[in-house]
Amino acid sequence: MTRHVQKDPYYAVIFTSKLADNTDGYAEISKKMNELVKNQKGFIGVESIREGKNGVTISYWETMEDIRNWSMNERHAEAKQGGKEKWYEKFSVKICKVEREYAFGE
Amino acid sequence: MTRHVQKDPYYAVIFTSKLADNTDGYAEISKKMNELVKNQKGFIGVESIREGKNGVTISYWETMEDIRNWSMNERHAEAKQGGKEKWYEKFSVKICKVEREYAFGE
Repeated sequence: MTRHVQKDPYYAVIFTSKLADNTDGYAEISKKMNELVKNQKGFIGVESIREGKNGVTISYWETMEDIRNWSMNERHAEAKQGGKEKWYEKFSVKICKVEREYAFGE
Repeated sequence: MTRHVQKDPYYAVIFTSKLADNTDGYAEISKKMNELVKNQKGFIGVESIREGKNGVTISYWETMEDIRNWSMNERHAEAKQGGKEKWYEKFSVKICKVEREYAFGE
């Protein structure tokens, strides 16, 4: 997800996680959230990579308010609760303003 | 890499990449860069994940100037040249200011 002509600033949410041993139900909820997020106001794109138990998902947003709205979305909140109770051993979230970017070969 | 008590703003460099078919020499240079970066002024930490050909590496820095210095480091510049000529089919770099963060289970 790279935008070459950058008119407005935008934001990135870096979500790094380590799965717990019991991931029953995780794949299903994860898929649902990936579908749901695409319809949110201000959503630009998402990149997600997993290597064993460790994952990084970076979502891109037009404004901080769009990020807040998504964080308060009811179904998203339910999924996050499941994440804390069951699926994740640990995770961290960093909300960032993209200051500059460049790309090669895209 | 999560800092719970955040006194000063800091910066993240999101590097997403797709490897080309020929990765001869890549592992060696990649290892060298991982060692070299740890001694750079202002370096805070790095997270790196690969899934097949796709990779995400996020490095954290104290200031934008530290990021600039590392980007101009001579050995780093050589490695980047190799990346463009041989190892990467494509990549993107996003330089971000971390505005807010939280963590669970860390």
